[in-house]
Amino acid sequence: MAVKALTFDVFGTVVDWRSTIIEEFQAFGREKGIAANWEAFVDDWKSCYRPGMDAVREGRLPWTNVDGLYRKKLDALLGEYGISGLSEAEKTRLNRAWHRCKPWPDVVAGLTRLKTKYALSTLSNGDVACLVNMAKHGGLPWDCILCAEIFHHYKPDGEVYRGAIDLLGWEPEEIMMVAAHNYDLGTARSHGMRTAFVPRPLEYGPGQASDLKPEEDWDVVAGDFEELAAVLGA
Amino acid sequence: MAVKALTFDVFGTVVDWRSTIIEEFQAFGREKGIAANWEAFVDDWKSCYRPGMDAVREGRLPWTNVDGLYRKKLDALLGEYGISGLSEAEKTRLNRAWHRCKPWPDVVAGLTRLKTKYALSTLSNGDVACLVNMAKHGGLPWDCILCAEIFHHYKPDGEVYRGAIDLLGWEPEEIMMVAAHNYDLGTARSHGMRTAFVPRPLEYGPGQASDLKPEEDWDVVAGDFEELAAVLGA
Repeated sequence: MAVKALTFDVFGTVVDWRSTIIEEFQAFGREKGIAANWEAFVDDWKSCYRPGMDAVREGRLPWTNVDGLYRKKLDALLGEYGISGLSEAEKTRLNRAWHRCKPWPDVVAGLTRLKTKYALSTLSNGDVACLVNMAKHGGLPWDCILCAEIFHHYKPDGEVYRGAIDLLGWEPEEIMMVAAHNYDLGTARSHGMRTAFVPRPLEYGPGQASDLKPEEDWDVVAGDFEELAAVLGA
Repeated sequence: MAVKALTFDVFGTVVDWRSTIIEEFQAFGREKGIAANWEAFVDDWKSCYRPGMDAVREGRLPWTNVDGLYRKKLDALLGEYGISGLSEAEKTRLNRAWHRCKPWPDVVAGLTRLKTKYALSTLSNGDVACLVNMAKHGGLPWDCILCAEIFHHYKPDGEVYRGAIDLLGWEPEEIMMVAAHNYDLGTARSHGMRTAFVPRPLEYGPGQASDLKPEEDWDVVAGDFEELAAVLGA
């Protein structure tokens, strides 16, 4: 069966969140005269993402979107790093740095080619507003925004994958999940979807140890989105 | 407060469903050698839309998407019109004529201008797959697909409008509902949204009697989407 639609993981796969957020915080620090190890700050901040989503997945926390999870941790980290006196508007702006993450250099060209042949949707744990704002900011030509917030379930809960298959209206094997994370492709495959692995070995910075290689025989392995477009005939 | 996002009713406001569906059925009739009054057929078919959605809204029918509502009525109408012997693939193709509705002539140019300044989302009773396929087919440059199927509520249920406001992440008054139907704008306004009326006096064909004029003092009244773009500074 021919692939009709591609669904994309976003953070790490499509956008280089770490460089973007570190740059935003460094610029904010210079502007406000606040010195801090912003790389460590951002790594600490990101480290709340999976535990926060897992708390929701396991019923220890009621549904909370990613903006909410990050905001709680941001407030805590500002305290830990001894940074005080920020206005509510400044904290909201910092928390929304995730809405301005920049795509990897190959992404816009690759998606633009893929869009001519396939329906392109996000399938991210990020929130709708975050994904829409990020697409406007970075020129990402999505046809559809699907994400955890729509299903009130975070990946890898099956509700996210089955929900996307159901809403897109194709058979599971007509939809290909594109991700830089093996776990995401494994779950997509378990729901009958096709799989494409695009490694992003610098997602977590120079010391990254995970997801450097495909861990299963994914349907496609491509070095970047331009190569993915070529392999998929777009 | 400045408007940040526009949400659009789709059937009637963005696409000329009646002409498209009649043409598709006429072509199908010629191809298959089936004579019928296809205009009457399509008008009869469309007449199931509101009662079907209202049955869901009032709890008389469990959640059923629009593809499902139309398919049930299509099967009934084929019987009433004495048309038999169609394959499942043919009936699916006819039922999906709604996925191929053509935009009014001003729409693509108007949306393309508006997209440079605002986030553009559907806010339709149509299904996700229908709206995605229609956008691919007609070149509609949406930033986001929001619709009844995501909320499991049909307009004018408040869950649809409040759901869109919540997911888009702006204040209600930063989002403008664009519609050719006064009832839709009335409900949007009751939830704090801004309103733009774009009349489509031929939506129901030459005898249309409703929604020819604004019935309240909507924030904007524009003759078409190009005028809407001009009024909104895009």
